[in-house]
Amino acid sequence: MNVAVIGAGSWGTALALVLADNGHQVKLWTRRREQAEELNKYHTNEMYLPKRTIPASIVATTDIENCVRAADYILLVVPTQAMRETVKKVSPFIPQEAVLIHASKGIEPDTHLRVSEMIAEELPDESKRPIVVLSGPSHAEEVSDRKPTTVTVSSTSIQLAEKVQDLFMNHYFRVYTNKDIIGVEIGGALKNIIALGIGLNDGLGYGDNAKAALMTRGLAEIVRLGVNLGANPLTFTGLTGLGDLIVTCTSQHSRNWRAGYKIGSGKSVTEVLEEMDMVVEGIRTTKAVHELSKRLQVDMPITNALYTVLFEDASPVEAAQQLMKRGRKQEEEHLSLLFDKNN
Amino acid sequence: MNVAVIGAGSWGTALALVLADNGHQVKLWTRRREQAEELNKYHTNEMYLPKRTIPASIVATTDIENCVRAADYILLVVPTQAMRETVKKVSPFIPQEAVLIHASKGIEPDTHLRVSEMIAEELPDESKRPIVVLSGPSHAEEVSDRKPTTVTVSSTSIQLAEKVQDLFMNHYFRVYTNKDIIGVEIGGALKNIIALGIGLNDGLGYGDNAKAALMTRGLAEIVRLGVNLGANPLTFTGLTGLGDLIVTCTSQHSRNWRAGYKIGSGKSVTEVLEEMDMVVEGIRTTKAVHELSKRLQVDMPITNALYTVLFEDASPVEAAQQLMKRGRKQEEEHLSLLFDKNN
Repeated sequence: MNVAVIGAGSWGTALALVLADNGHQVKLWTRRREQAEELNKYHTNEMYLPKRTIPASIVATTDIENCVRAADYILLVVPTQAMRETVKKVSPFIPQEAVLIHASKGIEPDTHLRVSEMIAEELPDESKRPIVVLSGPSHAEEVSDRKPTTVTVSSTSIQLAEKVQDLFMNHYFRVYTNKDIIGVEIGGALKNIIALGIGLNDGLGYGDNAKAALMTRGLAEIVRLGVNLGANPLTFTGLTGLGDLIVTCTSQHSRNWRAGYKIGSGKSVTEVLEEMDMVVEGIRTTKAVHELSKRLQVDMPITNALYTVLFEDASPVEAAQQLMKRGRKQEEEHLSLLFDKNN
Repeated sequence: MNVAVIGAGSWGTALALVLADNGHQVKLWTRRREQAEELNKYHTNEMYLPKRTIPASIVATTDIENCVRAADYILLVVPTQAMRETVKKVSPFIPQEAVLIHASKGIEPDTHLRVSEMIAEELPDESKRPIVVLSGPSHAEEVSDRKPTTVTVSSTSIQLAEKVQDLFMNHYFRVYTNKDIIGVEIGGALKNIIALGIGLNDGLGYGDNAKAALMTRGLAEIVRLGVNLGANPLTFTGLTGLGDLIVTCTSQHSRNWRAGYKIGSGKSVTEVLEEMDMVVEGIRTTKAVHELSKRLQVDMPITNALYTVLFEDASPVEAAQQLMKRGRKQEEEHLSLLFDKNN
């Protein structure tokens, strides 16, 4: 198959590598000429996947038309804030039969749209089709080392999801399908908020007991919002919910965790944003979800505590203590909120 | 209040410390004279809580009658395999009004009983009363450092659970109640199996992506068994299920994780058991749950793979690959098994 991968960050490059391992013809688009040259000449991507060799069959290009023109599958994997602009660039050249996949995570501030909804909005009528999302617990570094990884693909079209499952599946990269695209996208986006919170916890030196409690209660608030938006609550106990939450919160590969950690250790939000050379998706998502939780009147104490730290100059210590002080409660009352829209 | 803590391991000592911080009169029973002397003279417990100072108000004793005779609350916190024998020793001296609490984790091989059921069996008729279990994501070391911790107490008597909540609650130790004692005890016991599996994964060098997948699928099999035994599935998404699973699997404090790690790194099970100077609860629990899953015909692939490594000499690599190779699946099919007994 011919596959166009749009975006040569860590995750785009790692997914291109899986596809190349599976024998597909992969073109990898980047807007940076030096990065395309490095990939084609040295088969490396030092900025995003340091010390890894990229399969020589992958052809990098800065020409988006050339990249997608003959593609059977187009995989969009750019930072969420660049997604609309990228879709605009690609859309004139999308072949009629091509399957559209994305592997980006986030919720857009103001519109509160999921990534597949943003993409759909930017596609001209003649290019509209169901979009497939690929998501799950997966550090790009480990995928590029061929370490065992499992992910989920989801779409309103189960046929398309199964085609994408076959495209990616191999012995180290296991792919499940799930038809709850709302739950899959919400889980992937919101775990970045909790990862920021866990980073904050770790930066403050609070330890593993507090971390486990935060993750547990974090998952509960993800489910509350997700169910409100029409997701199946079970999706959040799967790979794209709990699984992705665990991998993001317990590993120092995560940019969101690192940003939270630095803030917890005493740096200002501005300093941290200046220091980090990659996008911290969770910060924008915190803003979007804070707005959304107010609009829908869903109780999201962790997201809102984090919002006050990121956007209202609250001190991390106070925000954390506020979370800890919430009243004496019956756990099942707290948990029953998980499913209250469905029961 | 007068509280008798039976068992001066890490967790018993840490809980005694919380109770002393709350102003209660705490007697701490140990069968080892030197340990009692160390606690009373130096206010330390170097073997189980190295480098921590224990509050001087805690009185250690080897005299079990003296320990429990005037107690308002009796907290049993000994290794599960010593629980029956310990209850036999204590039961002649239990005051009529005393509240019985336990904080031990496990399922008994052969009988397949939970800890509170084992305790009830050993109590003479005149001493029978509802038992309260205390469980949740909590490393003893962090509790003794007064790091923020949240736990759950559960009992068939919600009044007793609330009394125990009041006994322990303070600013660093938050206590929730939950009336699903089956779910609370099953979650606490079975997470030790998954922790062994995660240790194995880490010992084999498989990385965070595989770890997240194992934890996610591990929680799913815990829920399947628990629901079969009458637990509320929501309990497993709370502190004593997911929370405890996270803290046990992501921290090197855990003895079960360490045992799994050593086996994954190439040591034999016998070598590992000889090296570890504390009880590895998860090994006995794996045996018990393997039997139970066969009896109840519940699909528990992780537990059963681990059983073949621990008790049938299977190689860890083969067991792990077997788990990874399970067929191409729809995730929601897999997940719907979670709740199939209730829907």
